[in-house]
Amino acid sequence: MTHRLVVVGGDAAGMSAASQAKRLAPDLEVLAFERGNHVSYSACGEPYLVGGEVSDMDRLVARTPEQFAKQGIEVHLQTTVRAIDFDHRSVVVDREGERSRIGFDFLMYSTGATPARPQSIAGAGRAYGLRSLDDAAQLREIVDARIKNAAVVGGGYIGLEAAEALCHRGVAVTLVTSGSHVLSRTFDPDIGESANDAVRKLGIDLVVSAPVYGISTAGIATGGEMILADLVVLGVGTDPEVSLAREAGIEIGGSGAVAVNEFQETNVEGVWSAGDCSEATHRLSGRQVNIALGTIANKAGRIAGTNIAASINGADKSRFPGVLGTAITKVGEVELARTGLTTRQAQAAGFEVVSGTVSGTNTAGYWPNAAPVDLKVIADRKSGRLLGAQIVGGPGSGKKIDTLALALWTEMKVEDLAWVDLAYAPPFSGVWDLIHIAARRAARALA
Amino acid sequence: MTHRLVVVGGDAAGMSAASQAKRLAPDLEVLAFERGNHVSYSACGEPYLVGGEVSDMDRLVARTPEQFAKQGIEVHLQTTVRAIDFDHRSVVVDREGERSRIGFDFLMYSTGATPARPQSIAGAGRAYGLRSLDDAAQLREIVDARIKNAAVVGGGYIGLEAAEALCHRGVAVTLVTSGSHVLSRTFDPDIGESANDAVRKLGIDLVVSAPVYGISTAGIATGGEMILADLVVLGVGTDPEVSLAREAGIEIGGSGAVAVNEFQETNVEGVWSAGDCSEATHRLSGRQVNIALGTIANKAGRIAGTNIAASINGADKSRFPGVLGTAITKVGEVELARTGLTTRQAQAAGFEVVSGTVSGTNTAGYWPNAAPVDLKVIADRKSGRLLGAQIVGGPGSGKKIDTLALALWTEMKVEDLAWVDLAYAPPFSGVWDLIHIAARRAARALA
Repeated sequence: MTHRLVVVGGDAAGMSAASQAKRLAPDLEVLAFERGNHVSYSACGEPYLVGGEVSDMDRLVARTPEQFAKQGIEVHLQTTVRAIDFDHRSVVVDREGERSRIGFDFLMYSTGATPARPQSIAGAGRAYGLRSLDDAAQLREIVDARIKNAAVVGGGYIGLEAAEALCHRGVAVTLVTSGSHVLSRTFDPDIGESANDAVRKLGIDLVVSAPVYGISTAGIATGGEMILADLVVLGVGTDPEVSLAREAGIEIGGSGAVAVNEFQETNVEGVWSAGDCSEATHRLSGRQVNIALGTIANKAGRIAGTNIAASINGADKSRFPGVLGTAITKVGEVELARTGLTTRQAQAAGFEVVSGTVSGTNTAGYWPNAAPVDLKVIADRKSGRLLGAQIVGGPGSGKKIDTLALALWTEMKVEDLAWVDLAYAPPFSGVWDLIHIAARRAARALA
Repeated sequence: MTHRLVVVGGDAAGMSAASQAKRLAPDLEVLAFERGNHVSYSACGEPYLVGGEVSDMDRLVARTPEQFAKQGIEVHLQTTVRAIDFDHRSVVVDREGERSRIGFDFLMYSTGATPARPQSIAGAGRAYGLRSLDDAAQLREIVDARIKNAAVVGGGYIGLEAAEALCHRGVAVTLVTSGSHVLSRTFDPDIGESANDAVRKLGIDLVVSAPVYGISTAGIATGGEMILADLVVLGVGTDPEVSLAREAGIEIGGSGAVAVNEFQETNVEGVWSAGDCSEATHRLSGRQVNIALGTIANKAGRIAGTNIAASINGADKSRFPGVLGTAITKVGEVELARTGLTTRQAQAAGFEVVSGTVSGTNTAGYWPNAAPVDLKVIADRKSGRLLGAQIVGGPGSGKKIDTLALALWTEMKVEDLAWVDLAYAPPFSGVWDLIHIAARRAARALA
């Protein structure tokens, strides 16, 4: 008997699951419903479409519906799932004005997230947000129409990247954040200050510690002043899209996203979830978190797909090993990267925190054009374990975060990290890498 | 009672030991003897002094004798230790034509290595080698005199870097190596082929599989032909400087370098050794190896210094945790990096090897000017453990090797490496990092 998988939402998590399930269970019938015009696209590339680094929307599409069709996966665009009915194991979908009901054996819930529009900001619905490729294309058209100035609300990754993109296109940009620094939820204040400098160096007018309480066609209102702008972009985080799930009786976790176990299974038999709409286990705090990142969506989606296939063919299930919240972005030439817990997050999780920070360069000090780099690690006083790391610095410094992510992943102590055999040549680092030095300082702070 | 430490050889290992010992045991009297004109210099920076990236020899000196004097460490330059006499716990030194005898309580043996001059190459003594800063300065002067062409013998790190430096200065360079590719001792042939391409792209005339059997003032003789050159540079590896040690009765290991334990202790009580002249434990093969790299010299030297101090003040001794042979270099814009065992080394160490290779880019594929990167991992078929990794690729790709070094260090399986939470944004990688993809392929090859 052929089983049918219905995928609700066709970006990273959904299509990874679809693809992996079909690969491992070729007899599975797979239908994917996407309300937008594209599946399997790079949401992370959208700011660069606006900024012009990426010329063409199609370049951000990893796989088209036609490519999925060749694999035997049926993609339905512009198709909105209105309800999930577990009593009849079917979904209610709207397409081109017509409503129909489609049965399923298995369901993949991968609706993603939408730009947050907090109730505390009056008129938040009027601002532009970046979600679909069409959102990005629309924003690009507005910029092409030669607007003069823009206000970006929010200093997270999307806010920063949108601000830089607009700046890159010659628009005068004001970036407003309620935090004392940009990236205030994911970076410590000391590193955040350097990020502020990088933003200002680009020529962006950065306004910190300024909660926005209203958005109008004329601009935005903060506590202190009214900022006039031809365009307002909202980048204050995302909300997981869980309304369909909640109505259908799929359990929502404490973070507000769909609750899943390590197999990406929801509380409903035969229903998996992954991506920006769902939770994941943080490897350090042990808590269920909702972090909207493409890396997590792709990995967790693949695990879901493996387990959907396993439910048919009886193979061993795969476990999603959890997340560290590793992330990277850039502001001009300055790279910003982080992994694990910030000091505040670590304290909230019950750790007593020590830190080690080094200000150095991304090459030997004597190398021409050595660019400054600040690297910070934090550790648990009791166990000596690394808890998190943050980097702000010149070209080539950001991806050092992966080495620190590996150290976190393997529960390394900072004392041991200080001696790892890392690569050195003058164009690439000092003979003691900045990672060694920061780890050694943290180890000393433990004593 | 004050103890005296005599340091024989004043570069990375010796001065790291001196400095650390003095820091932890302030009453220790420290005398360092160096036959050259500098201590604590960056030998790895020498090719870039020749090439002109580094303008001034002094920039390669990390600390001067005056700076050491401020720390209470007495440095004697142009002072050659002729003999070590354990019966009388003293060294015989020559300085400015005068011989003297100086007693010690503790000895740090850190004589480094000299460019190898194999007997199989007649006239090898006539070629230039790079060891001291003065060697580099002399080579630079020769290039300044506008020589037209040069032959470099040997395709290791020094050979490659010297060839590029000369090329950078407008000299026509022929690079001759006995291997089928450059870096043939440290990279697998498939990655090595890409390295060959990078060398040729620079305009260097690369001659492979060509053992050199003679060097004269006119050039070099290979099996196939005579290559005329105004200058011949020898870069066929290094030999540890162990003659003094051997004569004094310090044990030499199977690799030909000074045998030490994990505390950097030699077989003689009160005598430590570290750096290019000594052995280190390879963490994967478990064997004693002699790898001449500044990273190892600095770390092992620091451990020696800690333990010298511990022998006085009774503190706990520190263990040197061993090496992976992690290394990096660049050829033009192409970065080359490696860690762990090559396929051949792994097989020689008794492992059955599987591999996973990926050819991708150092950014998202759609990012402008995405540069190609090849990344290879090898794993042990039995345990699934990562055994080594090699990278050749564009800017920003080389230091990815540190992430793989961390994975080796923590004995990670490739199956687990494929899921680590690494950083992603379009300017930095694909959403699945090349490390994930290569690890996944190796994991699949295990099955």
